[in-house]
Amino acid sequence: MRNCECGTRNVSAGVGPRVQEIIDITDEVAAQVAKSGVQEGFVLVSAMHITASVFVNDHESGLWADILKWLETSVAPWDPKRYRHNETGEDNAAAHLRSLTIGHEVIVPITAAKLDFGPWQRVFYGEWDGQRKKRVIVKVIGE
Amino acid sequence: MRNCECGTRNVSAGVGPRVQEIIDITDEVAAQVAKSGVQEGFVLVSAMHITASVFVNDHESGLWADILKWLETSVAPWDPKRYRHNETGEDNAAAHLRSLTIGHEVIVPITAAKLDFGPWQRVFYGEWDGQRKKRVIVKVIGE
Amino acid sequence: MRNCECGTRNVSAGVGPRVQEIIDITDEVAAQVAKSGVQEGFVLVSAMHITASVFVNDHESGLWADILKWLETSVAPWDPKRYRHNETGEDNAAAHLRSLTIGHEVIVPITAAKLDFGPWQRVFYGEWDGQRKKRVIVKVIGE
Repeated sequence: MRNCECGTRNVSAGVGPRVQEIIDITDEVAAQVAKSGVQEGFVLVSAMHITASVFVNDHESGLWADILKWLETSVAPWDPKRYRHNETGEDNAAAHLRSLTIGHEVIVPITAAKLDFGPWQRVFYGEWDGQRKKRVIVKVIGE
Repeated sequence: MRNCECGTRNVSAGVGPRVQEIIDITDEVAAQVAKSGVQEGFVLVSAMHITASVFVNDHESGLWADILKWLETSVAPWDPKRYRHNETGEDNAAAHLRSLTIGHEVIVPITAAKLDFGPWQRVFYGEWDGQRKKRVIVKVIGE
Repeated sequence: MRNCECGTRNVSAGVGPRVQEIIDITDEVAAQVAKSGVQEGFVLVSAMHITASVFVNDHESGLWADILKWLETSVAPWDPKRYRHNETGEDNAAAHLRSLTIGHEVIVPITAAKLDFGPWQRVFYGEWDGQRKKRVIVKVIGE
């Protein structure tokens, strides 16, 4: 292991509360990998929040709309009344369930100092509860 | 890499068969990380079972109840009759599908010898088929 | 870290378009681990595609049938008309959502030069859009 670079990124999750948003963070992750000097290894990209996701998929806005609609109509409707978590004063239980479904982190392989992605693979941050400033940790391991 | 600590943990999954249970294992994972002496790296926390999950989310009992209800009513109802897997003599096909949805492992970053979590992030074991003694592997890599 | 082996594997995804297929790739992953010479570490197994999954579960054909049925009836029906992504000329939006639900990669621990799996754990490639030649990256880190 030559070094282990650690960075975080602030995500501004839209202009209003509860904004659901999908943000392509591939270029920022690639910049962290370049900065680390690692040639062969892994990069962990992980949301530091329990109502968000990090995932690898396609840079296509129609698909992003499909994902948001699917989260609402199929995975976990926002409807605060159905969740006990919301008796604590929150109303974002659905965002937790969306985070659990898609996951909150990915590991991307690094080969020859680059993100070793297949065709169309990109890495995204998914904000399911757009209330606060958000952070993503990007951590590189390898040599 | 200075060392690579490997541990397993027995999970007692409640008192009856098919108990669905969510267990906070953060302190035990943190203890393994401390024991490893790793300052910068990753810890893998992985269920050694195909009817269980490991995930990062919130220590809030109302949310845990929401997750269990959501798994039953939305993700994969237990109802043994709907699954071909259960023709083998099992009745836990739903537990497999719940494991696939939430995932069976997480990677947590280690920074300055600590679990590098955001606010409220904790790591949990989810038991979806409470029949047998269960194990979680905790493996640290870094330097 | 003694070395970091990187391999890809072609997956022939059945004979027709849109073939949904679950393929046990454990032996090929184990062979890559053996070739790497790594005794203690991690292996990343990651689909290089955005309409596929890699997951750990059970080698049981009834369960595989349950997974395929569940993806179609509960997770994301294929029905191309419901998705905006398909206005781009694709018809595989459902395959993207299935990939997001199950995930596209796993990390498996390596202990004493072997995949450190619990009982019945095996690693699978899930093809949700059987159109093209597919690749899985297998990358080992450790010492």
